[in-house]
Amino acid sequence: MEKIAMLGGGSWATALTKILSENGARVSWWLRSKDDVQHLRTTRHNPRYLSSVAFDLTRVFPSTDIAEVVKDADWVVLAVPAAFVKEALDKLERDALKGKRVISAIKGMLPSRNELVTDYVVERFRLKDECLGVVAGPCHAEEVALEKQSYLTIGSPDVALAEQFCQLLRNRYVRAHAAADLDGIEYCAVMKNIIALTCGIAHGLGYGDNFQAVLVSNAVQEIRRFLHALSPEPRDLSASAYLGDLLVTSYSQFSRNRTFGSMVGRGYSVKSAQLEMNMIAEGYYAVKSIYELNKQLKVSMPITSAAYHVLYEKIAPAVELEILKEKLR
Amino acid sequence: MEKIAMLGGGSWATALTKILSENGARVSWWLRSKDDVQHLRTTRHNPRYLSSVAFDLTRVFPSTDIAEVVKDADWVVLAVPAAFVKEALDKLERDALKGKRVISAIKGMLPSRNELVTDYVVERFRLKDECLGVVAGPCHAEEVALEKQSYLTIGSPDVALAEQFCQLLRNRYVRAHAAADLDGIEYCAVMKNIIALTCGIAHGLGYGDNFQAVLVSNAVQEIRRFLHALSPEPRDLSASAYLGDLLVTSYSQFSRNRTFGSMVGRGYSVKSAQLEMNMIAEGYYAVKSIYELNKQLKVSMPITSAAYHVLYEKIAPAVELEILKEKLR
Repeated sequence: MEKIAMLGGGSWATALTKILSENGARVSWWLRSKDDVQHLRTTRHNPRYLSSVAFDLTRVFPSTDIAEVVKDADWVVLAVPAAFVKEALDKLERDALKGKRVISAIKGMLPSRNELVTDYVVERFRLKDECLGVVAGPCHAEEVALEKQSYLTIGSPDVALAEQFCQLLRNRYVRAHAAADLDGIEYCAVMKNIIALTCGIAHGLGYGDNFQAVLVSNAVQEIRRFLHALSPEPRDLSASAYLGDLLVTSYSQFSRNRTFGSMVGRGYSVKSAQLEMNMIAEGYYAVKSIYELNKQLKVSMPITSAAYHVLYEKIAPAVELEILKEKLR
Repeated sequence: MEKIAMLGGGSWATALTKILSENGARVSWWLRSKDDVQHLRTTRHNPRYLSSVAFDLTRVFPSTDIAEVVKDADWVVLAVPAAFVKEALDKLERDALKGKRVISAIKGMLPSRNELVTDYVVERFRLKDECLGVVAGPCHAEEVALEKQSYLTIGSPDVALAEQFCQLLRNRYVRAHAAADLDGIEYCAVMKNIIALTCGIAHGLGYGDNFQAVLVSNAVQEIRRFLHALSPEPRDLSASAYLGDLLVTSYSQFSRNRTFGSMVGRGYSVKSAQLEMNMIAEGYYAVKSIYELNKQLKVSMPITSAAYHVLYEKIAPAVELEILKEKLR
């Protein structure tokens, strides 16, 4: 029986815990909130996310003690919001992840450091790149709860490790495959939130389906330019880990980045949109990280730039989209 | 003043007539229905499509006489359903299009011949390839009527001709650019209807957003393989004429191919779904043409094959999608 430590109490952590535990793994599950842990232990349901899912408490062990949760695990799955990952992991000793395989399911970067989560983990815990992986794919947690057919990609420089984790995930409604391009997949997962957020801004301003299709097409080209500048390995951006993830986030009703952008497009200030929403829109931080990273790379990124100007330089969304629309084709 | 003959009375013909005439062109407009022509001449509105649009009858001249409509035109724009294009054009003399530039806005092939519309026109009217072009792009006619920001691509082996037609289209809410890949753009416009139809089937069966994102990602790869086998020129399928067009058709509420597929997925027979809908789903014919063309090319096309089996071999949609889902990743 594989022993997995799941870190995070949100919808994606909840969905992954469902998949892994129902497949027979033992999941120690770290949640920050005492109340949520208590609720899970007594009712078998996460009170806040995917609350229809009942967990088998002979295999799922909720706890607020992160060190204890991680201690005996073979695999550590990171699924806290990127903005809090540093705070969460800094509770652990520097050798706490020694000998373990670490899978990041986080779709964001460390905001203060403009750093990929996996890069931070490697450095902080002195791990080898080959012990790390990422989970990606067009996969809304809400649809996992409904057991809708979904596909995941596990990226790792060690494709054998990725394939091992795939085996823990595969079931009646989840198909998974392994890939080698960890960095490309992780950056794309970050950038797709920027695009979804910008789709939301456009939607909020009254732009329609025709415009969104052009925006997403241009986004693929923008992501390709950026990834090529970072690491010019060959990769097929139409694979579902890249394009699929971009599509599900940009087009789905479940996307919080799109919802956040849409509120900004309709005239909410960034602050009031954030207050109004119960979840964190990762794209808000991603815009700043990618924009700042690109100051060195100097890739043409009209969409990311437009989002940055709206969110961080208080340019009116209508004005910024007028400028952006001239740059698309 | 450019003289344009518009052939077709549907929503796309109506939208293009709006754009071209409002830009100052003189548009002779062939519609098959006497009643529609009469309605347009007396009320300035097309009674059946985009009926909110009022036409300026000093520049727009509806008629049921196709030969008369074409006679003095510099440009002939084809916008009839692909299934009727042969019937419509066969009313014209073989030299009726001599010296004219012909732009196809048809997103389908001649069903009886599995032939691209532009190839048929070249052969039937003994024209040079360089006199032909196609209009593509993610552009629902309904959004043109609402003057929502839209983008068009004109493809022609003569890029200067394409650029001339772009100039006739550009306005406050339409951006247009020229491209050289006529065949690739035309085939992609045909194939995207197959994908939208299959998205509809999946949706009708209860598959969700996660699955659709994977289906569309795999579709890009399927289209790329097919186009590469037909004409291996380099082309960027993430350009809006390809990917954008695929997205707007697969994701939009206005897509009749998606609607048709969704009815089939929900259990309607092909016949009753066709009767229920007021418009022709071009994808129905496209599936057969592309499937048959591929018998020579032998490209791996799991999505097109699945749609073919459902629509033409009466395989139950649920069974066919179970098989398809194993082939995607």
